[in-house]
Amino acid sequence: MGQSSSQSSKTSDAYATGTTGGRLAEATGLEIAALKSGPLGGEAQIGAMIAEGRLDALIFFIDPLTSMPHDVDVKSFLRLGIHYNTLLATNEATATHLIRSIARQ
Amino acid sequence: MGQSSSQSSKTSDAYATGTTGGRLAEATGLEIAALKSGPLGGEAQIGAMIAEGRLDALIFFIDPLTSMPHDVDVKSFLRLGIHYNTLLATNEATATHLIRSIARQ
Amino acid sequence: MGQSSSQSSKTSDAYATGTTGGRLAEATGLEIAALKSGPLGGEAQIGAMIAEGRLDALIFFIDPLTSMPHDVDVKSFLRLGIHYNTLLATNEATATHLIRSIARQ
Amino acid sequence: MGQSSSQSSKTSDAYATGTTGGRLAEATGLEIAALKSGPLGGEAQIGAMIAEGRLDALIFFIDPLTSMPHDVDVKSFLRLGIHYNTLLATNEATATHLIRSIARQ
Amino acid sequence: MGQSSSQSSKTSDAYATGTTGGRLAEATGLEIAALKSGPLGGEAQIGAMIAEGRLDALIFFIDPLTSMPHDVDVKSFLRLGIHYNTLLATNEATATHLIRSIARQ
Amino acid sequence: MGQSSSQSSKTSDAYATGTTGGRLAEATGLEIAALKSGPLGGEAQIGAMIAEGRLDALIFFIDPLTSMPHDVDVKSFLRLGIHYNTLLATNEATATHLIRSIARQ
Repeated sequence: MGQSSSQSSKTSDAYATGTTGGRLAEATGLEIAALKSGPLGGEAQIGAMIAEGRLDALIFFIDPLTSMPHDVDVKSFLRLGIHYNTLLATNEATATHLIRSIARQ
Repeated sequence: MGQSSSQSSKTSDAYATGTTGGRLAEATGLEIAALKSGPLGGEAQIGAMIAEGRLDALIFFIDPLTSMPHDVDVKSFLRLGIHYNTLLATNEATATHLIRSIARQ
Repeated sequence: MGQSSSQSSKTSDAYATGTTGGRLAEATGLEIAALKSGPLGGEAQIGAMIAEGRLDALIFFIDPLTSMPHDVDVKSFLRLGIHYNTLLATNEATATHLIRSIARQ
Repeated sequence: MGQSSSQSSKTSDAYATGTTGGRLAEATGLEIAALKSGPLGGEAQIGAMIAEGRLDALIFFIDPLTSMPHDVDVKSFLRLGIHYNTLLATNEATATHLIRSIARQ
Repeated sequence: MGQSSSQSSKTSDAYATGTTGGRLAEATGLEIAALKSGPLGGEAQIGAMIAEGRLDALIFFIDPLTSMPHDVDVKSFLRLGIHYNTLLATNEATATHLIRSIARQ
Repeated sequence: MGQSSSQSSKTSDAYATGTTGGRLAEATGLEIAALKSGPLGGEAQIGAMIAEGRLDALIFFIDPLTSMPHDVDVKSFLRLGIHYNTLLATNEATATHLIRSIARQ
């Protein structure tokens, strides 16, 4: 989830990699900009958005029991999310608390 | 930060690797059980605690701009924290929201 | 294989990850304490035991021809086993010599 | 080096990470768009550009004798450069041949 | 492709890992010395040949969408190829330019 | 340490990477063939020797507290040593038992 800091900005308010975006859009009615699927560069796009200050928060669920060829891409954006102090949830419990806290602000 | 589910449990309520624990204890007055320093196995201890259901939440700040020989240890417990749905914050912004949300429960 | 330094210790004399322990117990009649399976944190438990001085020797056969999501967990405990000078065999030939030499002591 | 496929495109013709761009601009007189430095996300930006089809060729010299915290970022864009069939040189010898061959087209 | 510096040398002019060599020999009529398959050490053999100055050029296509147990072997010889300034192509586009430029010398 | 299976073989009986060989030769009087230093490919040479069945036993001490640019080279030969069932010691305790057991054969 990436929220632009200004309502008039032309960039999207929310992003998702691969087919996740379509499913989220269907379930929530939100407009969600599609990034590439993970293996095809979607996570590098996330990394670039973090580095360019274009992501406020990132909820990203990784399968911890499967080897991924794009493992380095995932570790790259996690590293950048740490450096740029991006709100970051990698599992459901953390995401629930993060969303709850943001909603109350 | 690890909180035991029962007050009568003999395990500690809070843990920290290396010298971090001493500093936290001094600053907060909390009792904090010391784990090994990271390079000497502190992160493997965290990973084991996650796998054994002995950690409720984990706040762990990694330096994203330094190569670490124990990089695999860190990636191991992050992987386990994802699988076991442990509350997990790896930067200050996420930690702030996580603590705020937990405190309101 | 982990041997406690004292016979009166309440910790186990032998450990194994996942279903390996049950098979070893059946084949040998030894009592073997079960750790988690590797992908679920068994190797992090091994790493923690090494760091805490609770393992004297470790025989661990890794499949060198399969990608593992818990690859970092394995590399973490191998790193710790090197640092803590734990007796360490990762293939059958080394294990045979190690056991033979220990038995003769 | 990234060349846009159309002269009228508003994207730059050449990119470089960190301070490399300034040095190249000074030495060559070319206009070179600056990406972030590598540790701060410049390589994730390169990865995103590859995935989005915005790079025709990439000349990137990595120090093979130094550990880098952003090692995963570098491996991520090399992986994407392989997938997207981007012209790719990681040392001087390969770069010389690549430039010579492109110049003759 | 590895070319010996002297025609009278007994080392081969071309090498390939695994079954690739047989297929290349059939398709081209070239004599190609077989290295081990990648998972069984073929890439370590390539790394050693690079370090020993026995490879002039290396064309190696890696599947960027599959996890490999010998991923470290591949990254090892890529690192050495960078250090020793070996002509190096990891995708078809780069290989085409490299071969074209070498052929024109 | 690599021992040829036949006394008449022209290959060396012992190998070491970098400057280690010179020190060992001085201390022991053994003839020791020098491989490249680790960062320059010595470990890839070890990997190739393992794959080609030219190493019987390997004693290799890695610094577990330092990040190495050639980390992948080390992990590559450890992987191959597991596959080819090479006698393998990565710390002093294991090496001592291994040498004792071999000497008694």
